[in-house]
Amino acid sequence: MNTRSFLKQLLRSVAAPVDSARSAERRAREVIALCHALVSERGEVSGAALARDVLAAYDTLPANAFKPFIDLLAKDFSPSPMTIAAAAAAYALDPSPHNLVTLQRAVEPPRQELFRRMNVAPGATAALVDMRRRLLRELKANPDWVGVDADLEHLFGSWFNRGFLRLERIDWRTPALILEKLIEYEAVHEIAGWKDLHRRLASDRRCFAFFHPALPEEPLIFVEAALTERISTTVAPLLDPESPEADPARADCAIFYSITNCQDGLRGISFGNLLIKQVVHELGREFPRLKTFATLSPVPGFRAWLTATVRDGAANLPDLSGLNDESWFADAGQVERLRPALMGLCAHYLIAVKKNDEPLDSVARFHLGNGARMEKLNWLADTSRQGMQRSAGLMVNYLYRLADVEKNHEAFVREHEVVASHELKKLARESVLAPPADRA
Amino acid sequence: MNTRSFLKQLLRSVAAPVDSARSAERRAREVIALCHALVSERGEVSGAALARDVLAAYDTLPANAFKPFIDLLAKDFSPSPMTIAAAAAAYALDPSPHNLVTLQRAVEPPRQELFRRMNVAPGATAALVDMRRRLLRELKANPDWVGVDADLEHLFGSWFNRGFLRLERIDWRTPALILEKLIEYEAVHEIAGWKDLHRRLASDRRCFAFFHPALPEEPLIFVEAALTERISTTVAPLLDPESPEADPARADCAIFYSITNCQDGLRGISFGNLLIKQVVHELGREFPRLKTFATLSPVPGFRAWLTATVRDGAANLPDLSGLNDESWFADAGQVERLRPALMGLCAHYLIAVKKNDEPLDSVARFHLGNGARMEKLNWLADTSRQGMQRSAGLMVNYLYRLADVEKNHEAFVREHEVVASHELKKLARESVLAPPADRA
Amino acid sequence: MNTRSFLKQLLRSVAAPVDSARSAERRAREVIALCHALVSERGEVSGAALARDVLAAYDTLPANAFKPFIDLLAKDFSPSPMTIAAAAAAYALDPSPHNLVTLQRAVEPPRQELFRRMNVAPGATAALVDMRRRLLRELKANPDWVGVDADLEHLFGSWFNRGFLRLERIDWRTPALILEKLIEYEAVHEIAGWKDLHRRLASDRRCFAFFHPALPEEPLIFVEAALTERISTTVAPLLDPESPEADPARADCAIFYSITNCQDGLRGISFGNLLIKQVVHELGREFPRLKTFATLSPVPGFRAWLTATVRDGAANLPDLSGLNDESWFADAGQVERLRPALMGLCAHYLIAVKKNDEPLDSVARFHLGNGARMEKLNWLADTSRQGMQRSAGLMVNYLYRLADVEKNHEAFVREHEVVASHELKKLARESVLAPPADRA
Amino acid sequence: MNTRSFLKQLLRSVAAPVDSARSAERRAREVIALCHALVSERGEVSGAALARDVLAAYDTLPANAFKPFIDLLAKDFSPSPMTIAAAAAAYALDPSPHNLVTLQRAVEPPRQELFRRMNVAPGATAALVDMRRRLLRELKANPDWVGVDADLEHLFGSWFNRGFLRLERIDWRTPALILEKLIEYEAVHEIAGWKDLHRRLASDRRCFAFFHPALPEEPLIFVEAALTERISTTVAPLLDPESPEADPARADCAIFYSITNCQDGLRGISFGNLLIKQVVHELGREFPRLKTFATLSPVPGFRAWLTATVRDGAANLPDLSGLNDESWFADAGQVERLRPALMGLCAHYLIAVKKNDEPLDSVARFHLGNGARMEKLNWLADTSRQGMQRSAGLMVNYLYRLADVEKNHEAFVREHEVVASHELKKLARESVLAPPADRA
Repeated sequence: MNTRSFLKQLLRSVAAPVDSARSAERRAREVIALCHALVSERGEVSGAALARDVLAAYDTLPANAFKPFIDLLAKDFSPSPMTIAAAAAAYALDPSPHNLVTLQRAVEPPRQELFRRMNVAPGATAALVDMRRRLLRELKANPDWVGVDADLEHLFGSWFNRGFLRLERIDWRTPALILEKLIEYEAVHEIAGWKDLHRRLASDRRCFAFFHPALPEEPLIFVEAALTERISTTVAPLLDPESPEADPARADCAIFYSITNCQDGLRGISFGNLLIKQVVHELGREFPRLKTFATLSPVPGFRAWLTATVRDGAANLPDLSGLNDESWFADAGQVERLRPALMGLCAHYLIAVKKNDEPLDSVARFHLGNGARMEKLNWLADTSRQGMQRSAGLMVNYLYRLADVEKNHEAFVREHEVVASHELKKLARESVLAPPADRA
Repeated sequence: MNTRSFLKQLLRSVAAPVDSARSAERRAREVIALCHALVSERGEVSGAALARDVLAAYDTLPANAFKPFIDLLAKDFSPSPMTIAAAAAAYALDPSPHNLVTLQRAVEPPRQELFRRMNVAPGATAALVDMRRRLLRELKANPDWVGVDADLEHLFGSWFNRGFLRLERIDWRTPALILEKLIEYEAVHEIAGWKDLHRRLASDRRCFAFFHPALPEEPLIFVEAALTERISTTVAPLLDPESPEADPARADCAIFYSITNCQDGLRGISFGNLLIKQVVHELGREFPRLKTFATLSPVPGFRAWLTATVRDGAANLPDLSGLNDESWFADAGQVERLRPALMGLCAHYLIAVKKNDEPLDSVARFHLGNGARMEKLNWLADTSRQGMQRSAGLMVNYLYRLADVEKNHEAFVREHEVVASHELKKLARESVLAPPADRA
Repeated sequence: MNTRSFLKQLLRSVAAPVDSARSAERRAREVIALCHALVSERGEVSGAALARDVLAAYDTLPANAFKPFIDLLAKDFSPSPMTIAAAAAAYALDPSPHNLVTLQRAVEPPRQELFRRMNVAPGATAALVDMRRRLLRELKANPDWVGVDADLEHLFGSWFNRGFLRLERIDWRTPALILEKLIEYEAVHEIAGWKDLHRRLASDRRCFAFFHPALPEEPLIFVEAALTERISTTVAPLLDPESPEADPARADCAIFYSITNCQDGLRGISFGNLLIKQVVHELGREFPRLKTFATLSPVPGFRAWLTATVRDGAANLPDLSGLNDESWFADAGQVERLRPALMGLCAHYLIAVKKNDEPLDSVARFHLGNGARMEKLNWLADTSRQGMQRSAGLMVNYLYRLADVEKNHEAFVREHEVVASHELKKLARESVLAPPADRA
Repeated sequence: MNTRSFLKQLLRSVAAPVDSARSAERRAREVIALCHALVSERGEVSGAALARDVLAAYDTLPANAFKPFIDLLAKDFSPSPMTIAAAAAAYALDPSPHNLVTLQRAVEPPRQELFRRMNVAPGATAALVDMRRRLLRELKANPDWVGVDADLEHLFGSWFNRGFLRLERIDWRTPALILEKLIEYEAVHEIAGWKDLHRRLASDRRCFAFFHPALPEEPLIFVEAALTERISTTVAPLLDPESPEADPARADCAIFYSITNCQDGLRGISFGNLLIKQVVHELGREFPRLKTFATLSPVPGFRAWLTATVRDGAANLPDLSGLNDESWFADAGQVERLRPALMGLCAHYLIAVKKNDEPLDSVARFHLGNGARMEKLNWLADTSRQGMQRSAGLMVNYLYRLADVEKNHEAFVREHEVVASHELKKLARESVLAPPADRA
């Protein structure tokens, strides 16, 4: 009986439903046995067949076999410390290119070769990205998996090189299979169904995504933009499925109101920065009248920071207890009372509150890092439940001016400068938390 | 003046034609300066722009700047021995996954990140493949380049993973741009022009190639097949542009008469094995009547081996001096005299002459490694100049029987067994060079 | 001022919203003026521009301008009786090919040339198909429009020649724009929304449509099939969006449960017959295990015929008053009582009740004309409101056996033979309405 | 035996090679028998099968069966004079829409329905276009075929409506199958092979063609343009395969140097006018710097007219006997002598010599009818054999200025005005053949 026949029989034997922890572990070991066979296979033809077997076996693993499977991947497919020690010693004596290559080979876990070989099977790229998604969810509880994660991230860094991605427009002509995924993935402003989605793809909107040739039906990241006649300062009209369609030919402004990373398994492989820049180019070409490219973005860390600041007893804070009433924004009196303080505090939070020299707010970090300018703070711009709970209803327009993007980007990267409008800087300066010197 | 403006100006300054060795070196250093800027760039947006600059500058390097450029790549972008030593020491003390990841990062040359970043620029994948092609031509003379080569090979191994390749049929509907490259690349039986090519793509022929999504107009490897009514034993009718077209529906045999690797820069990244197997599947689906899949292949090392064997004074050799006359094959008497000896010697060469336990003949190694069977030796099968000089006019049919491919492949890989037909084994056994025991 | 400038100005002047009957008529006359200009234009370049103008003007006609517009088309663009009389006289004297061509040209209304010229404008084909749709809705009330209708039908007969249509599979990869139209058009079993549609496009279903190159996003006709393990006798499981997906590889039967003509404007240009036959071929190729191809079809004229028959006091009829209670099918006693009578009556209706020698039932005519065999009558097969009201809950399987299709088709076309199974014929023979001789 | 089986058998019986006039006629009658069966077939399914049979039988007709086949088409499938007479009489009494439709149906030959039904078979459109090509070649000798020709032209007028055509760029990425046809069809300046073709598709050239969806691999008409830095006045550099490629980004001029109708079978169905206009739009979009769009065109009727004029003994003609020496253009003295006379005569020929009020020169008629302006007459612009024999080496630039195209076109169509530059008018006015008043 040759190897593959044996393995096939083995595979069949495990197809029966098994659920106990012990049987799960046995199932995991069986897949790992196939993995060993694949890594040691010398021929490509048998290798391709084995890769399919591994994938098929992995796909049918019960949920509770995932942990033992990754445990074994982490344990069995790591490089040999002895081989590494020898190669490191040789390199230490003579750091020649040849010895370096030997050392590199010694430290590369056989797992990487395993993953590369698995990838020959149809559907394997998607399966591996999904494997890392599941792995990342439990990485904290399984610190030994860090090597498996590093191997997958290393591979994905090569495979999903941005030079291989294609920017594609998403509209009502896009296959339903892909549109359905937008509904599923959208992370900023939930899509309520096909009708909501249809409105977001109407003639006064644009949606673009990056795709990889090996995952032609999986958007990696997508951005939604509205073409408007002036800069949007509240998000509700953009999200209303019943809003009338505007004439895109009259628009002078493109508002990016949502950007979503779709693949958790590709964490650390970033594409977002290039996406916005490419989309700005595409829109500028299609609509030469567009003058302003800006986001309408949440301030997701503002309320949490504010709560902590109040709790820590910061000086000069006005009375913010009104915020405890969830519907304060519907009370005109409260609104009037809270507005000056919150606007100032939020501007201060965005511009002056830092972590490791960079803004604490993750959205601010993202857009400033892209070369955008923090342009305008909008009061009661998002009164959805989430908008109130995270951003106190505030939203920011980040401005993308192509001529300044690189300059802004460098100022941020090198000097950690928060490039902001005069108006926002003034608001921050006049905030109760600003140093007295600023307020002079 | 910001970095990119400076770099652009620098780039412009070097655009003037310069040719001396000194100026070539200066040009190389200038591109390397851009490479350093690219590797240390933190922003993706500027990174993408820099990647274009690097590529543009590299593309305009004069020929004599290539060596200094690769020299600098080898020298400047290698990892730091001290960092490696520290990481290796930490790992030696505690071979934890975390320390392994740290060591892996320490040994990865910044060059790899450089190449990954360059790849963002349009056309970069092709430029990098071409860079390795040029590098390989001069690698022997520049042993220090081995690290650069290893980095490119490592990257290409990930990028050109067979899971990302597409099998595509090549026919008269294929863009001329691609067809032109077949004419250029064909390595086994030269294509004499468009008319010759047209015949090879007619209805009784098939041609397939692997493509990578990032090089959509560059075949990586291609194979040519003829659909015939019985197994071909001479190659001339297959190559004759004037031969009448046969009815493919009546064919029972597919003869692979040429297989060409197109990209020298991808040496070591093999696809050929899978190509033949996939093509056998495709053809079987299109023409269910096909029963035999076989090659008609040269024996490229036969004459060289024979010459060496004669020179070394092997025992029992008949008089082969007739071979010295280049046109012996046109002399019926010579043909009759030489045939039994050459057939036996060639069978012996194919089956019994080894190097490291594997057949000395490269074509035999390739097809046996794919799981084919050495089926038939054909006398005066290729009387072209090249065919006579390398193979003494002999050609072999290697047989691909899908049911046996894996079994044959394993026999070859594990036991180095040369799977051959009885007829061929008998020829070898009866050859003058066979051990007397065999000849019994 | 040249013609087009004048016409453009005229067009602009009519852009204001006007609604009264008088202004509607003026608007119609203005578009007709453009039509006259288009028909008399000698240059193609100006003609193309004018065609766009006509289309734009027609598109903005208010609803109440449609009637005056078609009235004018009928009146102004008809051929000249005098010219016809002269040409007919010449032909009567000498029926030469030349005189025939002259007569043909004389009788062709300038409208046809108008429509052909309009078609140069982007979107015109769709607009003309829609024009006929609207025209047909009011044709009875406007008998003078018969010439306009005949011209459009004549053109569409050429344009939508079946040789120009493409059969395309519709699935979840199809653009949403097209899927949305299936929901809108489906005429047999209403599609309740995206979820319902998704189920109908799942792996155990197939949907195919004919498209015309000039209307790439408009299905002309589509058919839905379910792949099942035996012939379906009730429709509810096929229509249940929650039904589990079956394994198509195990299916031996394809049930066509819906076929919808999408374009009312193409009435009289039939494609349905070829659609089913081509789909049978496609399915047979994809699933060689399929043995049975059959429909599950309503008997839409049965109840109406039955009501009329009762009203006319046919002899021998049993008591059918139970049918008056809409929910009789939920009353086991009624069901038992009515079953034998209704099954027999329906078989009689299908096989023996004729109009012009052909079955009265339109669905029966369609499938018999396609070469299908009336196979099986299914009791309580469709208890939806529509199914009960039109077909008394009964459904028929029409069987498509490729080997018999032509023979059946000819028998039907020549002899008006209703090709039916023994079982159905027996049912009909034993029905109370069958001639006593049959019942013997 | 059913109809189709019979017909198939009949078809088989005729497959044997037969050549005599009598057998050719029998073959033709056999195909005609299939045609009768197709026209009288009532079912679409059998119709589709019959259409394939007709096409297959027609395709295998020997060359000498074409004439009897068309003769029978002309004779057998014409409408009935009696039916026409009755319909004409009814219409004469009451010219109602209904009677008109009846008359239209009466005059339409069954041939049209035959051709529409044949078109269902794959490849039929191409076969019918080719049928008309052959028919037209012998139409003069067979005046009775005029009805068949009229039917095909009528159908093609509908089928090849310009609204159904697609403009496509032809370049080196185009399938070889199509490129090969350009080489075959090119009618103005012969393409000498693949190398010549490659040059004509290089980066400083553009080629566009119209395609019909039913003939996706058959260009209907194509135009070749060169992007140049100033208007071309001689054609040789444009046709030289060795000419260096210019930078298209620097071009300010697009020279149309060749336009070819590919399908003789579509004579009378014109597309050329729209082609040039659409290409001007495409080029203007791709290269906004282009300011001038002009042709470099022959004067194909000049020498023939001149010869006739000399022969007729026109007054004032200078001595043109030098033209009799074929190589006069290589003789500097002759060139100097002939230049003023020929330039004037040619300008006179182009502007003042008419036939039915329009210019006698066919190329002039074509471009003036498109709205171009006759801009410049170029001396010794085409010294190829054909150029000298037809145009005496002269070529004309016709200028396409989009702003003037419609105005020029109308002036030509309405007033037969030859829109020409001052320079050309002056040349014509000063020609020896101009009326004395003009020359004042």
